[in-house]
Amino acid sequence: MPANASLEELIEALRGLPSIGPKAAQRMAYHLLQRDRRGADRLARALDSALQNLHHCTHCNNFTEQAICERCLSTRRDPSQLCIVEMPIDLNSMEQTQAYNGLYYVLMGRLSPLDGIGPKELAFGRLITRATDGVVKEVILATNFTNEGEATAHYLSELLHARGIKVSRIARGLPVGGELEFSDAATVAQALRERRDFD
Amino acid sequence: MPANASLEELIEALRGLPSIGPKAAQRMAYHLLQRDRRGADRLARALDSALQNLHHCTHCNNFTEQAICERCLSTRRDPSQLCIVEMPIDLNSMEQTQAYNGLYYVLMGRLSPLDGIGPKELAFGRLITRATDGVVKEVILATNFTNEGEATAHYLSELLHARGIKVSRIARGLPVGGELEFSDAATVAQALRERRDFD
Repeated sequence: MPANASLEELIEALRGLPSIGPKAAQRMAYHLLQRDRRGADRLARALDSALQNLHHCTHCNNFTEQAICERCLSTRRDPSQLCIVEMPIDLNSMEQTQAYNGLYYVLMGRLSPLDGIGPKELAFGRLITRATDGVVKEVILATNFTNEGEATAHYLSELLHARGIKVSRIARGLPVGGELEFSDAATVAQALRERRDFD
Repeated sequence: MPANASLEELIEALRGLPSIGPKAAQRMAYHLLQRDRRGADRLARALDSALQNLHHCTHCNNFTEQAICERCLSTRRDPSQLCIVEMPIDLNSMEQTQAYNGLYYVLMGRLSPLDGIGPKELAFGRLITRATDGVVKEVILATNFTNEGEATAHYLSELLHARGIKVSRIARGLPVGGELEFSDAATVAQALRERRDFD
């Protein structure tokens, strides 16, 4: 064991965060230890609590502390529309437009064969079951307009069409290669309004 | 309490990390929950362990798990030289040069009146006690060449000079491999001013 094992372990653990390199991890560790010990303790508690309490909504697959999340239980939303997004952060982008009142399904990823993420890893079976509940009349594909997001949309549209479900795709109001997360609400709203049949 | 309090608390806690904004905090939270739950648990444990085990070396003020750190206890280092740096990360930079074999004192900051960090907050009294132990013959000021680092160096040099201690400052100039053409004027001017006899 090295002399400062707990410091080295903290720096290594921080490096595991997305897009944090070795220098940034060191700065974070020293910042937490020297200037924000309460913040460090808060983060440790928050990680524990999140790991323990959050799981996937059985309806929309988003993170929730309940079995079925508040949005899926809401009587104010239109259950005949099901919008499919890649990640929770994309759902937030959609909600910020205030242009959509249906329900969601969060894939928690996109097809990415190079990373070993296929239809099985994304549990497409669960999504098909959800979309063929007899209430859903239209599935709106809102995956990103990246290569992987497009491939995911095409794959899903074939699965859903084969089951006689109406499928649409949000419009290319977003720039080619753009991602929901980095688009302004007005552009996302426009893309939603101009969605077209997916064939 | 909101429905997903533990998710919102995790995002807020991650925002407390230096230079992490709201979007990055969201991405980190979703990444940890969806793709790296082991990493999240590891980080929580590492934070707990670091908070519990690490404190300041009574000699050099750097983080250590012992009362006095290994470097300060080493018999291979020259105790007559004391190099003052702002942060542990700066100490690491000095060590990587393999050009220094003396001891260190880590300020854990720099004078920054706007942030309310003065001589008292940096515990200059402890540093003076350390530097006047009768063994230290030279204090090398290696604070950064920022406005705040320079102010810190000037302030410390006056305190130390007043106690009859020899004080030096690491040199400013062109970087190794640097070319005049691509250096800023202030650096070239400084390199000219601090020129030394060529022999």
